[in-house]
Amino acid sequence: MSRSLKEIVARFGGELKGDGNLVVTGLATLDKASPGQLSFLANPKYFSQLASTRAGAVILAPEMAGGCPVAAIVTPQPYLYFARASQWLAPKPAHPSGIHASAVVESTLPSSVSVGPQVWIGPEVEIGANVVIEAQCRIGAGVRIGADSHLYPGVTIYHGCHVGSRAIIHSGAVIGADGFGFARETTGEWIKIAQTGRVSVGDDVEIGANTTIDRGALENTVIEDGVKLDNQIQIGHNVRIGRNSALAGCVGIAGSATIGIGCTVGGGAIILGHLSLADGVNVSAGTLVAKSITAAGSYTGTVPFLRHDEWLKNFSRLRHLDAQADKIRDLEKRLAELEKAK
Amino acid sequence: MSRSLKEIVARFGGELKGDGNLVVTGLATLDKASPGQLSFLANPKYFSQLASTRAGAVILAPEMAGGCPVAAIVTPQPYLYFARASQWLAPKPAHPSGIHASAVVESTLPSSVSVGPQVWIGPEVEIGANVVIEAQCRIGAGVRIGADSHLYPGVTIYHGCHVGSRAIIHSGAVIGADGFGFARETTGEWIKIAQTGRVSVGDDVEIGANTTIDRGALENTVIEDGVKLDNQIQIGHNVRIGRNSALAGCVGIAGSATIGIGCTVGGGAIILGHLSLADGVNVSAGTLVAKSITAAGSYTGTVPFLRHDEWLKNFSRLRHLDAQADKIRDLEKRLAELEKAK
Amino acid sequence: MSRSLKEIVARFGGELKGDGNLVVTGLATLDKASPGQLSFLANPKYFSQLASTRAGAVILAPEMAGGCPVAAIVTPQPYLYFARASQWLAPKPAHPSGIHASAVVESTLPSSVSVGPQVWIGPEVEIGANVVIEAQCRIGAGVRIGADSHLYPGVTIYHGCHVGSRAIIHSGAVIGADGFGFARETTGEWIKIAQTGRVSVGDDVEIGANTTIDRGALENTVIEDGVKLDNQIQIGHNVRIGRNSALAGCVGIAGSATIGIGCTVGGGAIILGHLSLADGVNVSAGTLVAKSITAAGSYTGTVPFLRHDEWLKNFSRLRHLDAQADKIRDLEKRLAELEKAK
Repeated sequence: MSRSLKEIVARFGGELKGDGNLVVTGLATLDKASPGQLSFLANPKYFSQLASTRAGAVILAPEMAGGCPVAAIVTPQPYLYFARASQWLAPKPAHPSGIHASAVVESTLPSSVSVGPQVWIGPEVEIGANVVIEAQCRIGAGVRIGADSHLYPGVTIYHGCHVGSRAIIHSGAVIGADGFGFARETTGEWIKIAQTGRVSVGDDVEIGANTTIDRGALENTVIEDGVKLDNQIQIGHNVRIGRNSALAGCVGIAGSATIGIGCTVGGGAIILGHLSLADGVNVSAGTLVAKSITAAGSYTGTVPFLRHDEWLKNFSRLRHLDAQADKIRDLEKRLAELEKAK
Repeated sequence: MSRSLKEIVARFGGELKGDGNLVVTGLATLDKASPGQLSFLANPKYFSQLASTRAGAVILAPEMAGGCPVAAIVTPQPYLYFARASQWLAPKPAHPSGIHASAVVESTLPSSVSVGPQVWIGPEVEIGANVVIEAQCRIGAGVRIGADSHLYPGVTIYHGCHVGSRAIIHSGAVIGADGFGFARETTGEWIKIAQTGRVSVGDDVEIGANTTIDRGALENTVIEDGVKLDNQIQIGHNVRIGRNSALAGCVGIAGSATIGIGCTVGGGAIILGHLSLADGVNVSAGTLVAKSITAAGSYTGTVPFLRHDEWLKNFSRLRHLDAQADKIRDLEKRLAELEKAK
Repeated sequence: MSRSLKEIVARFGGELKGDGNLVVTGLATLDKASPGQLSFLANPKYFSQLASTRAGAVILAPEMAGGCPVAAIVTPQPYLYFARASQWLAPKPAHPSGIHASAVVESTLPSSVSVGPQVWIGPEVEIGANVVIEAQCRIGAGVRIGADSHLYPGVTIYHGCHVGSRAIIHSGAVIGADGFGFARETTGEWIKIAQTGRVSVGDDVEIGANTTIDRGALENTVIEDGVKLDNQIQIGHNVRIGRNSALAGCVGIAGSATIGIGCTVGGGAIILGHLSLADGVNVSAGTLVAKSITAAGSYTGTVPFLRHDEWLKNFSRLRHLDAQADKIRDLEKRLAELEKAK
């Protein structure tokens, strides 16, 4: 998309320094941008690249604006400005409204909806205006999807689940499969518990590729507004993820856990079942959360890595930490006696 | 589904207290149930909710029955009873037998089978009676699936793999992709080893959404009867999972590992390759199993999490555990000398 | 496939001992092989099985050849030889060239390409000779795939991504979904950053089932030639994986990390974002890599597992390692004083 700096500032604000008629066609980093591109300086550590940038214009903060050799859009939050501008300038593949001839659609859809090749949409499905459903999505009976949502190819939504407006759901995501619920027979057999809740996804949620969100057992699994889920995340039944929380790739949230508002969870972290995380909790990547967290803040439970031989030498000690603590206690006692005797 | 208490007790046993003609239409928790619903009390910690429940009837143990203000089904194992009743009472989406016009089916199927839209079934496939294959499943050449199995939309089964009867396989599961087997050239290139075994899945197995089970290299990967696999599990080639074992989400089992009968593996745990776990082993969530386990019991290898600043202070010590053990040994020696000298 | 030993040696080299007209139809382990099968002895620990093998012939090293009771192919690298022979001898399901009638193809393809049932190929796609695209793959606009590549059923490649020649991509893999990039509003909302780079996959790459590789934000995500990725791997935006590196199942690589040439990463390991791993680094399974690694070698950061009661006793000490180090320092000081006083 080609836009003049004037148009960009008219839409997103900021103070323009330089020629407002300059047209840019995309975004690029300071060191890679060409004169037809817009760049940004959000992290001070890249300040040294500003003087030599070949970008047509740079989005930056007032305190950086002095050093800018080209046109500038000055704004107190350049990274946020860049995010908004990036969406507007990015090329958008066309998704013409209408239903592809190869799709199987068993519900009535608004005429503004785009349904791609080989999609299956079951009966009693309600889809909002301007929704895009790309190739080979599978939408079960009774599903509801809000306006302006976008499903990339191969998304599965099980029967009865709800997705809000402006959702973005990537390929291979599965919403509403059965939760993992069984009762164990004395013989060891597992007897399945019917999973009759749904998944309820709010507005402005993004769900990454191959992420799975299980339906509730009796009640619902709830993903609140503004939540962002990366790829390959697993969310168990009856979980609730609070508004504007963001979970990185490969995170697992076990059944009935509750994540507060505005939390972040780093990649590969595991939250055990039936726990609560307060609002504003940040869990570091790779951390196993085995009890509830009642106060905002950052929490970590990972071990440093070492060269393998160093690791062998040090980490084998972990099996003997308790004995070691005993030894220290014994030393303290004996030393105290000697000191007394002195 | 609507059922009278009389019908439920006729089917599943238990002692009925109250009006057998009372009709219930679904299950709900004690605190949420309405008079038209059946509830259950399995965990004593919810006993306090019994007195005020509005449920039509409650499934509970004899020792709890006294406090029940509504009709009751009394049984020694209320959770198991609830599981069985939940399946019977849950609404079942209809899957009419026959092959959808948009499916591509290259084998002959029993007339009782239901094949959904845009399914592909390759040649020489054998499907048992009453199997449901939902939209967009892909069933490779020579696959066999036993009677009464249910494949949700978008399941992939590679050529030659076998699945038993009464299997439930969720969307995005991939059964029979190549194992990860390569020989390394001295130049660093990896030469692929053909993976010519199959996956053999027993009866009564459930496989979660986006779970992957690789085919064997020369022999087979085997999932025994009654195994339950949650979502996003990875099972390498030539693994064997023993009868009635249950694996939670995000577990990884590396190639040629053998899991015993009746094991449980918590979420995100990793079992390394070529290991054996005895029958009745429980591996805690997040644990890395790096050597075989020869006795039943619970095993754990995770670290506690801390506030990030506390973590930094404590966990940096892990790099120096060996030096610390040396210091303690030195202290012990010096102290013993002082004690002797006294 | 049936091949005589003579044919095998003519193709792959090695010294034949025994009847070159002997025909073998597949590979098997020493203890399971029948007289019509070829076996191999690569790991000396299986040497004891050689004397009693019923294989038709065995691939082995010169120093083992004396003990072989049947025909032999003698080669200095029997495992590599076995890998190559396994590919040649494995049965290959037929994939006739041409486009299945149920596929939706919006680009012009070479006549040698095989497109399976219900595939969607968007506009402006370029596919090389002899490529096989199995059932229900989804290939976005502008994608390029090199010659002789094989996509198993249900692979997704987003618009604009490139895949080299001789790639093998397994079911459920998603290449080119949006990276996880957001700017955070002071209100807590996340503003999406358009992801306008592509994924660029080199030649001879294998990508496992349900593995996801995100497209770059501004620049590209790059998978170099010869890389092997197991199942359920997540690769973030702007990552670069060096030539001939191999990653095991469930690995996560966060955004903008750079993995060197010839690295290996064990199952379930997590590499944090913006880090670099030197060439020839081996990361052990389950290790969290939280800082860059500048020298080749093996690195580990995992904890041993214990019986649960032993674990409780020892690992609770981790919360107090810092206090314990203080105690030791105090003991050392007091003991030194006593020693001085003596």
